[in-house]
Amino acid sequence: MSGTRMQAEMAEQPERLAALIGRSEEIAAMVAGLRPDPLAGTSVLARGSSDHAAVSGRYLIEEASGRPAGLAAPSLLTLYRAHVDYSGYLGIAVSQSGHTPEIVTALERMQTAGAAGLAITNDAASPLARAAHATLTLEAGEERAVPATKTVTATLLGFALVATALGETPFTRDELARVPEWVAAVLDDAAAAERVAAGLIGATRLITVGRGLLLGAALEAALKLKETTTIAAEGFSGADLRHGPIAIVDQGLPVLAFVADGPAHDDMVELVDELRGRGAHVYVASADAGADLPLPAGVPEALVPILAVVRAQQVALSLARARGLDPDAPSGLSKVTST
Amino acid sequence: MSGTRMQAEMAEQPERLAALIGRSEEIAAMVAGLRPDPLAGTSVLARGSSDHAAVSGRYLIEEASGRPAGLAAPSLLTLYRAHVDYSGYLGIAVSQSGHTPEIVTALERMQTAGAAGLAITNDAASPLARAAHATLTLEAGEERAVPATKTVTATLLGFALVATALGETPFTRDELARVPEWVAAVLDDAAAAERVAAGLIGATRLITVGRGLLLGAALEAALKLKETTTIAAEGFSGADLRHGPIAIVDQGLPVLAFVADGPAHDDMVELVDELRGRGAHVYVASADAGADLPLPAGVPEALVPILAVVRAQQVALSLARARGLDPDAPSGLSKVTST
Repeated sequence: MSGTRMQAEMAEQPERLAALIGRSEEIAAMVAGLRPDPLAGTSVLARGSSDHAAVSGRYLIEEASGRPAGLAAPSLLTLYRAHVDYSGYLGIAVSQSGHTPEIVTALERMQTAGAAGLAITNDAASPLARAAHATLTLEAGEERAVPATKTVTATLLGFALVATALGETPFTRDELARVPEWVAAVLDDAAAAERVAAGLIGATRLITVGRGLLLGAALEAALKLKETTTIAAEGFSGADLRHGPIAIVDQGLPVLAFVADGPAHDDMVELVDELRGRGAHVYVASADAGADLPLPAGVPEALVPILAVVRAQQVALSLARARGLDPDAPSGLSKVTST
Repeated sequence: MSGTRMQAEMAEQPERLAALIGRSEEIAAMVAGLRPDPLAGTSVLARGSSDHAAVSGRYLIEEASGRPAGLAAPSLLTLYRAHVDYSGYLGIAVSQSGHTPEIVTALERMQTAGAAGLAITNDAASPLARAAHATLTLEAGEERAVPATKTVTATLLGFALVATALGETPFTRDELARVPEWVAAVLDDAAAAERVAAGLIGATRLITVGRGLLLGAALEAALKLKETTTIAAEGFSGADLRHGPIAIVDQGLPVLAFVADGPAHDDMVELVDELRGRGAHVYVASADAGADLPLPAGVPEALVPILAVVRAQQVALSLARARGLDPDAPSGLSKVTST
C-alpha cells in the first residue's frame, strides 16, 4: 500500500511529542543559558516545512521574549556574505536533517557575527548540530518518507518549548501536556480527511488560507499537498489573499481554510463566506460545529497549528492514495536541500 | 482599449523615479535623523506588492545598516496585541495608499513600543503618513489602475534610498542616477513581453522563480499575473522550489525565471536547466544573451529588481490584453486592503 511510511510516521506523533514535552525542563534550561542579555531580537533560519513551522513559531518567540522575532534571508549571509552585526541576537536554525548546507553556513556566519546560535534538528550528530552553540534535538526518530510529518509537528512544539524558556506564553503547562492526546484524537478521525480528499479527487488547483498563528499551518498544508499529489496548491495569509490574489478565486476552486478560536476567528469566518460567495468550494478545519476537518475544542490558539498540520498531513496522504500516487517517494524529491 | 490606465502609469515610471532620485539628499537627511543609535534592527510592515518590495528591500537595509532587518508579522501587533519592546528598532511601514488600517495600527503600536517609525507611502496626507514619525513620500502621482505599478518600483527605489542613508550600498550614486534610463529601455522593448504573453495565452498555471535580491521580483510577478489575468501563478525562491514544490513541475508548465548577474546567477542558471529537464517551458528574464525578457547589461544586482518588476508588469499587461481582460479593474479587487 502506498504511503505506508508516511502513515506510520504520522501515527508516531503523539508518542514523539510526549517524549519532547518530557524534556521541557532540560530544554528550558539550555535556552535560558543561551539567551543573550539584553536580547536585541531573534532571527530564524529555515527553508521548506521548517520555515512554515517558523512562521508560526516566531509569534510565540516574539511574544514570550518581548523582543522582535523574524525570519532571516539565509542568502544574505551565504551568497551575499553581508557584514552584519548579530550581537544580542538569538539565532535559531531549523533543519530536520541538519544537513542543508545553506542553513549550516548561515548559522555559522550568524554566530561569528555575534549571535547566540540554537539548532533545532532531528539529527544530534548532523553538521548543523555540530555547528550550533546549543541544540534542541527533536528525537522524533528517523523520518524515511519524503514528506516531513513528525519532524514538522515536533519543530512546532520545539518553538513552543523555546518560547516557554524565554517568557510568558499564551498556554499553560497543563495545556502543553495535552498536545499528544489532542493529536491522537485528530489521527483517530481519518474519515474526515478522506471525505475532503474525495472532494478534491479531480482538482488541479487548490488554495489554502490561514491567518496569524495559523498562517504557517496553511503554508505547510499547501506544500504537503504539492509534494504528495502534484496539485498546484498555494498557501495564503487571509489578509494577503484579500489584497489581490482573491482575483484567482472562481467557481468551484477548492479552498482549505484553517480557523482557530482567537482574535483572527471572525475575520476568517467572514473570509470563508466571501470565498463561498465567489463560488469557491471551501473546506474548513476548525473546532466550530460543522467543520469539514474538526479540530479538538478548548485548545489554546498557540497550540492549534500542531493539530492543523496533522489535518493537512491526513488530507495529503488520503488524496495521494486516492490518486494512486506514492506519497513516500514523490517524483524527484530528496530529503536534503543542497542549495 | 483595455489596460489604458495601467499602461499610462507604467510609462510614467522613468520620470517618477527620476524625481524621487532628485530628492535623495532630503530623504537621506530624514532617515539619518530618525535612525536609532545604537540600532538594534529594522522591522518592515507591509502587505501585497509593498511586501514584495520589502522582500528585496530588506537585503539592502540589512547590509547597509549592518544590523538584522526583517519583515514583521503585522497581526502580532494588531490582532494579538503582543507586548513587545521595539526600542532601538527602525520600523518601516509601507503602503502605497497609506490607508490600510492594519498597517497604520501596527506602526502606531510599534512606535508606542519604542520604534522609530518611517512610513513609505504615495499619499502624504494619508493616515499612515500622519501616524509615522517621518514619511518618505513616493510622489508617484495618483495610481488609478488596480494593479500597482509605478508605486511598486518607487517603493523599491525608496528602499534603496533609505539604505543609502544607513550605510554602504552595493551600488554607486552614478548607477542610481541611471535607473530611469534603464527602466525606459525596458519599457521601449514591449515586444519581448508580448512574445512571452503569446506563449502563455492558454496557460492556467505558471510559476515564477527568483533568488536572493530577485525573490521579491518573482513574488511580485506572480501577484501581478494573478491580479490581471486570474492565472494561478505562484512565486518561489529558487532554494525553496528545490525543497519540495518542484514536484509540481511537469511537462509544459510555464515558468518565469528572474536571473541577475551576481552570486545567485549560476545557481539560477542550473535551476533553469533542471526545470527544462523536467519539461517546463522556462522564460528567462536576464541580461544574458538569448534571454526571453532582456534586462539591461551592467546594472548592479541590487537595482535589477526594479527592472525585473517592470518586465513583470509588461507581461501581465500583455497577457491580460491577449485574453481580452481589463487589467485596470480586475474582478472584485479594490486598491485598499481593509483587514
